[in-house]
Amino acid sequence: MRAVDIITRKRDGQVLSREEIGFLIEGCVKGNIPDYQISAWLMAVFFKGMTAEETAFLTDSMLHSGEIVDLSDIPGKTVDKHSTGGVGDKISIPLAPIAAACGVFVPMMSGRGLGHTGGTLDKLDSITGYRTRLPQEDFNRIIKECGYAMTGQTEKVAPADKILYALRDVTGTVESIPLITASIMSKKAAEGTGALVFDVKCGNGAFMKTPADAEKLASMLVNTGKALGKKCSALITAMDNPLGKMTGNFLEIEESMDILEGKGPADTTELTLELAARMNMLAGKASSPEEGRKAAEEAVSSGRAMEIFLKNVALQGGDGKKLLADRGRRRSQYKTEIRAENSGTISAINAYEVGKAGIVLGIGRTRADEEVCPDAGIIFHAKQGTEVKKGDIIMEAYGKNSSCLAEAAAMLEKTIVYGGDGGESSGHTSAGNIILKEITDGK
Amino acid sequence: MRAVDIITRKRDGQVLSREEIGFLIEGCVKGNIPDYQISAWLMAVFFKGMTAEETAFLTDSMLHSGEIVDLSDIPGKTVDKHSTGGVGDKISIPLAPIAAACGVFVPMMSGRGLGHTGGTLDKLDSITGYRTRLPQEDFNRIIKECGYAMTGQTEKVAPADKILYALRDVTGTVESIPLITASIMSKKAAEGTGALVFDVKCGNGAFMKTPADAEKLASMLVNTGKALGKKCSALITAMDNPLGKMTGNFLEIEESMDILEGKGPADTTELTLELAARMNMLAGKASSPEEGRKAAEEAVSSGRAMEIFLKNVALQGGDGKKLLADRGRRRSQYKTEIRAENSGTISAINAYEVGKAGIVLGIGRTRADEEVCPDAGIIFHAKQGTEVKKGDIIMEAYGKNSSCLAEAAAMLEKTIVYGGDGGESSGHTSAGNIILKEITDGK
Repeated sequence: MRAVDIITRKRDGQVLSREEIGFLIEGCVKGNIPDYQISAWLMAVFFKGMTAEETAFLTDSMLHSGEIVDLSDIPGKTVDKHSTGGVGDKISIPLAPIAAACGVFVPMMSGRGLGHTGGTLDKLDSITGYRTRLPQEDFNRIIKECGYAMTGQTEKVAPADKILYALRDVTGTVESIPLITASIMSKKAAEGTGALVFDVKCGNGAFMKTPADAEKLASMLVNTGKALGKKCSALITAMDNPLGKMTGNFLEIEESMDILEGKGPADTTELTLELAARMNMLAGKASSPEEGRKAAEEAVSSGRAMEIFLKNVALQGGDGKKLLADRGRRRSQYKTEIRAENSGTISAINAYEVGKAGIVLGIGRTRADEEVCPDAGIIFHAKQGTEVKKGDIIMEAYGKNSSCLAEAAAMLEKTIVYGGDGGESSGHTSAGNIILKEITDGK
Repeated sequence: MRAVDIITRKRDGQVLSREEIGFLIEGCVKGNIPDYQISAWLMAVFFKGMTAEETAFLTDSMLHSGEIVDLSDIPGKTVDKHSTGGVGDKISIPLAPIAAACGVFVPMMSGRGLGHTGGTLDKLDSITGYRTRLPQEDFNRIIKECGYAMTGQTEKVAPADKILYALRDVTGTVESIPLITASIMSKKAAEGTGALVFDVKCGNGAFMKTPADAEKLASMLVNTGKALGKKCSALITAMDNPLGKMTGNFLEIEESMDILEGKGPADTTELTLELAARMNMLAGKASSPEEGRKAAEEAVSSGRAMEIFLKNVALQGGDGKKLLADRGRRRSQYKTEIRAENSGTISAINAYEVGKAGIVLGIGRTRADEEVCPDAGIIFHAKQGTEVKKGDIIMEAYGKNSSCLAEAAAMLEKTIVYGGDGGESSGHTSAGNIILKEITDGK
């Protein structure tokens, strides 16, 4: 078998075998196949795509390039959630304790923010003392004790994905649905979770800009999961406007607690409950999304979800007392306000541009080795559908220092789109259109 | 400027600027841009192509990555010929002295055979003593003394092409018309010739399998030449059957001498004279192809072309006496015959398969560092259009050793296609369909 022949076959639109894909991935990890052949193959895949079966073979090869986490001592069904990334997406943080309160075991492995999207780990790191690099035995123990644990991926998971992703990043081959699928699924399958719920974001603030692409990715994720023996379900959700009324690291912990207490914004609450409903179904705790949602709502209204959240904070080393004391008070001292330039209805706030302004403020980063500022963030006082008068405060922005504020404010002003009928929403965080579509097994 | 952005722009079908292409090629030669980015870009070019202008920019960057030969002391117009490679293609060898006899200065730089196609240098090397690695001053001096010289390309010509070609060879990106064009033209332009005639082969034994692809390549070569300030002309010629009645290294020297004496096979004679006619036109020695051809015919019939050939052999160190003595006698002692299995008309002899059998016999090579056998070869006693009776000798095959003969004979038997009406040809080497189309400036 020769790499050049496999590249040529893919270039010519042919379907590769399990052996051919395995040969490339193994050769790439062992260093027998040079990067220049892998990158040419990636570009051929970009143009010619991969079938569901090829994508499953690729995922399987990447998955088996590293360690697979052993969750066999968890006494029940495990379900994780993966989001393709957005702006203000703190959903994992309230979702895990809500699902755990419903009896689902949630082994949640998350990532850090990069570019305009935020990362769950960066948000959790803003809780004083909270550890996000758990040794395997602590991870399993905490899941058993409170129903969920949150950690970062180890270096040993899917090393093939690290190599391929680094190459894709510099060769213009990131935006390929089968490559994105294999990257996500190889890491998620390596975590050892029994089932997975996907939140596939769609819109200007997401990697999938169109409903057609989001649907393709969601279907491929669900089908690849199935091929690997994992039950999967996917929601395609809106990411044109930032999620919720807060973005930022500690600010999103605050909003997560609001959701856990049943007083979160409509959009993030809706999304959290709908994802929890699917997790409950996949774990066999509910026989319909309605039943699953009802259980999730009860987990919130009973206070059990918040209780589990605080228990998890303590188990992962976080200072729960300080967290509660900081709530509503911990803000960067460097602050600016964005006010309405006109009277009228806001029709949109561009999520992608908010994400980019967030990098300037210190919420996010452009390079993986950059620090983020836990206290930077944006509070939205008005969002899509809100009527404002000229001079009203639309956003409060908190920065990592004083010098970033002017640039960030100028960027944030441009994110606001005035006009539109405003009739679609009754408040400043619409829940109406947050879930666009559901993709389940075989669809 | 970042390589990844240039790759992405090409991937998305955009037209690259001179600066972007220059940045990539310079970075590639200097080692600032890694191979994995170049190979991803090559694959993007494979899929998205390049405009005539982009191809000229690429050629120009590659050309200026190395030395450009100085032919300014040659006292007249210089014209070289380039063939895209075929089986039995010895045309350069009789063509150069014929054009030289017409007053054209021919600075011919050739290559070695690789894969199923032969190389002019390997053929010339079979002339005892003949030097094919001429220092620059000898090259220019011999051109001045006899009107032409033949040499291999130096290492210093177009180093970017060497890097790109090595990458293309292992990444499935050889078969791209703009990349082929830039590779050919950068080397040919670096030779310093004033004008160029292209013989673009078309058919199973050529790199361009279809007339449409051959025409695209011919047009791109001519237009790129024009953009670089070189007059160019191209003939698209048939390469489904081997050219002439001999393939092999010394055997093709023999056939070249037959052509020079006006007694060569019809197809090779026709092709040589038509190419000479274009060289005469490009050098201003003729005002029409007809006039150019007439001059070429006179160069042959007067004996001047053969005289110049023998003078060149002597000037390049070859043993002319031995050459004449060897003619018709020098054959490998390892011989086999391929006889007709049926009575009937031969409709074709598959050139590509003949080329592959030639590698087994020792005429050609599969790796650049392999030796070839000067005395191996095939003499065709029958070709397309010939009527044969069962048992007639169709080919005599000479091998590098005794052990290669059985395999080569089995391969050669399969190259013969019986059937067809045979009406298209009057002899065993048809001239009728050798020239398929002509492409000149602006067409």
